[in-house]
Amino acid sequence: MNNFAKVISEIREKKPIVYQITNTVTINDCANVTLAIGASPIMSFCEDELEDVLSFASALVINIGTMDKSMRKIVVKAGKIANKLGKPVILDPVGAGATQARKELVEKLLEKVKFAVIKGNVAEIKAIYGMKNESNRGVDSVESSDNIEEIAKELAIKYNCVIAATGKVDLVTDGKRVAKIENGDIVLGSVTGTGCMTGALIGSACGATEDYFTGAITMISTMGIAGEKAKLQGNGNGSFRQIIMDTVYQMNEEEFLNSAKIRVE
Amino acid sequence: MNNFAKVISEIREKKPIVYQITNTVTINDCANVTLAIGASPIMSFCEDELEDVLSFASALVINIGTMDKSMRKIVVKAGKIANKLGKPVILDPVGAGATQARKELVEKLLEKVKFAVIKGNVAEIKAIYGMKNESNRGVDSVESSDNIEEIAKELAIKYNCVIAATGKVDLVTDGKRVAKIENGDIVLGSVTGTGCMTGALIGSACGATEDYFTGAITMISTMGIAGEKAKLQGNGNGSFRQIIMDTVYQMNEEEFLNSAKIRVE
Amino acid sequence: MNNFAKVISEIREKKPIVYQITNTVTINDCANVTLAIGASPIMSFCEDELEDVLSFASALVINIGTMDKSMRKIVVKAGKIANKLGKPVILDPVGAGATQARKELVEKLLEKVKFAVIKGNVAEIKAIYGMKNESNRGVDSVESSDNIEEIAKELAIKYNCVIAATGKVDLVTDGKRVAKIENGDIVLGSVTGTGCMTGALIGSACGATEDYFTGAITMISTMGIAGEKAKLQGNGNGSFRQIIMDTVYQMNEEEFLNSAKIRVE
Repeated sequence: MNNFAKVISEIREKKPIVYQITNTVTINDCANVTLAIGASPIMSFCEDELEDVLSFASALVINIGTMDKSMRKIVVKAGKIANKLGKPVILDPVGAGATQARKELVEKLLEKVKFAVIKGNVAEIKAIYGMKNESNRGVDSVESSDNIEEIAKELAIKYNCVIAATGKVDLVTDGKRVAKIENGDIVLGSVTGTGCMTGALIGSACGATEDYFTGAITMISTMGIAGEKAKLQGNGNGSFRQIIMDTVYQMNEEEFLNSAKIRVE
Repeated sequence: MNNFAKVISEIREKKPIVYQITNTVTINDCANVTLAIGASPIMSFCEDELEDVLSFASALVINIGTMDKSMRKIVVKAGKIANKLGKPVILDPVGAGATQARKELVEKLLEKVKFAVIKGNVAEIKAIYGMKNESNRGVDSVESSDNIEEIAKELAIKYNCVIAATGKVDLVTDGKRVAKIENGDIVLGSVTGTGCMTGALIGSACGATEDYFTGAITMISTMGIAGEKAKLQGNGNGSFRQIIMDTVYQMNEEEFLNSAKIRVE
Repeated sequence: MNNFAKVISEIREKKPIVYQITNTVTINDCANVTLAIGASPIMSFCEDELEDVLSFASALVINIGTMDKSMRKIVVKAGKIANKLGKPVILDPVGAGATQARKELVEKLLEKVKFAVIKGNVAEIKAIYGMKNESNRGVDSVESSDNIEEIAKELAIKYNCVIAATGKVDLVTDGKRVAKIENGDIVLGSVTGTGCMTGALIGSACGATEDYFTGAITMISTMGIAGEKAKLQGNGNGSFRQIIMDTVYQMNEEEFLNSAKIRVE
């Protein structure tokens, strides 16, 4: 477990700048959780400064939660610039399968941008899988299947990236190794943005270590531990949210080693 | 009071999806309060996915708090689609009378969209009344009058909807019945977005019950109870906000029956 | 110190309306902190209502944190209208030196709008100085210098306004007098938006008193005191944020006189 715990110290030492093009619902929480883990957030939707911001950022997080016409243009462009500059790009394909517009945006992103990590819930990861296999399976049949592990591995190989599928048990794979994380609590679902915050944390890790697989696992486990603490100490989604943030702020190697539930296969 | 309390259980059982086109100031609070009451929020400003989102949403909330050119177009279109699909539409006409641009948007919405509930503070409801009666009364004279009950009833009949006018005593009417709610505390005014959150709660209720009159009353009373608890337990608008959220999260029929102050005439 | 403390009472008595064109990351915190100090926030990005809003607002705060094409147009126009109407304008030039697009926007604002107060961190104030002195010094050499006091004074005289440069010791000058504020704690940097909130507070003060120098000092000290309390009582940037808000909410003359550390030279 030490290699996982070490990621936390690496973020706190390197303080990477994490550029996030994210949704307007949870943008404040994403900025605060980035600070909580010891990294430095930059949020901008300005096309004219993409190159300038990416020149000094260590990672780019693309979250399509409230995508619209102007954001669609910017995220593809930002992803391409980040690729050119060799900065890792993290994709949070919020609601990927829910609407046609989101499907098209995710397809375009997958076509134009090389990602370091794609993190979504099981439905979103399955939606990405369905997109590229529509002819023979369709989205619906994929949705109803339980083979998330196979799907995630296949996607990881296809896109040469780490796939993180969050759910009751979270799963992270680089196409060869598969990690299962059993931290977390159902109260995480009652606070808006805990998924987005996990994406921001993964961006923070990828800005500090090149081992994206280990980074993604550590951050998903960290958010899960925060959810467990929120459940124990909170009274509702107002206090849950505050405890989640405080727990991430206080996270260190010792605390992590005491609480993380990770199996790598 | 049991019919009011039952609305809370109905929301928690049906978990309606509430599509909210709302302002960027309080969008996070609106999402969290929707989760707190047991419904599921979707926020999107993307014109291309209005139909897709409305096809699976149970209600639409339109809040014009930070309306601009692009939002003006989207809310009218979204309202018309929701009407076509038979989904209830809730209007929160923030600052309706404050600027010419808002007046024009509200007029257009009232002309093009059929609303289930219009909820505003007394000034906003009076502004709507003034709009449609400019020739003989003007906005100013209406503003200074105290006849909110008559005005709300008249508007409810005219627009065939429920009108909720929040104030020291909150008033809800469907044109025949009038409910007065005496929950709440002045501290609600010190937390930004408590009005918007009330709109999100009413959207949640309307997504779970077709009795919009009862739904609106229950939700306004719920927010009022949360404000009373915030006043008792909080130290300022930081903690007030958290207690409001936690109180809504914990609200159930028993708690509601103990605290609600509602008179129906 | 009494003249500083009095500003707090003046805001609470006059309840000025503070129009804020600000970033989408911290817009909710800016609205809440404005309410906490006793003023009334209005947030709008709608070009069509700039004149209407400014006609009843007491001050305008321009924060360029998430500026983009449309915001660039609006802030210049809003600043000019506010000048025409004699309302004080406060500039928070977030990231002024970080990208070319921001430099250009700040230069344009300085050219077209007369500001009452420009508040930035030391790097931002130095960036503004560098802009106008590029030929002989360049931004980098200025960045590395320690002469913030001279620079701030020179800018205050040049732009005939109050310059506030926040840092380990905060500095406020009108070109003649220089105040140094030693309140604050490093935890303020772990909560996103504490700088933006300070700008909102200065806007609140400038809406209540014409003595912008005194107003800016009092508000920077107030935010610093809130940071000190957060450090003492909080467990992380979730609770820090709440304590900051509650402390501002509870601030009064007595509390201020007990805690403020201000030297005027």
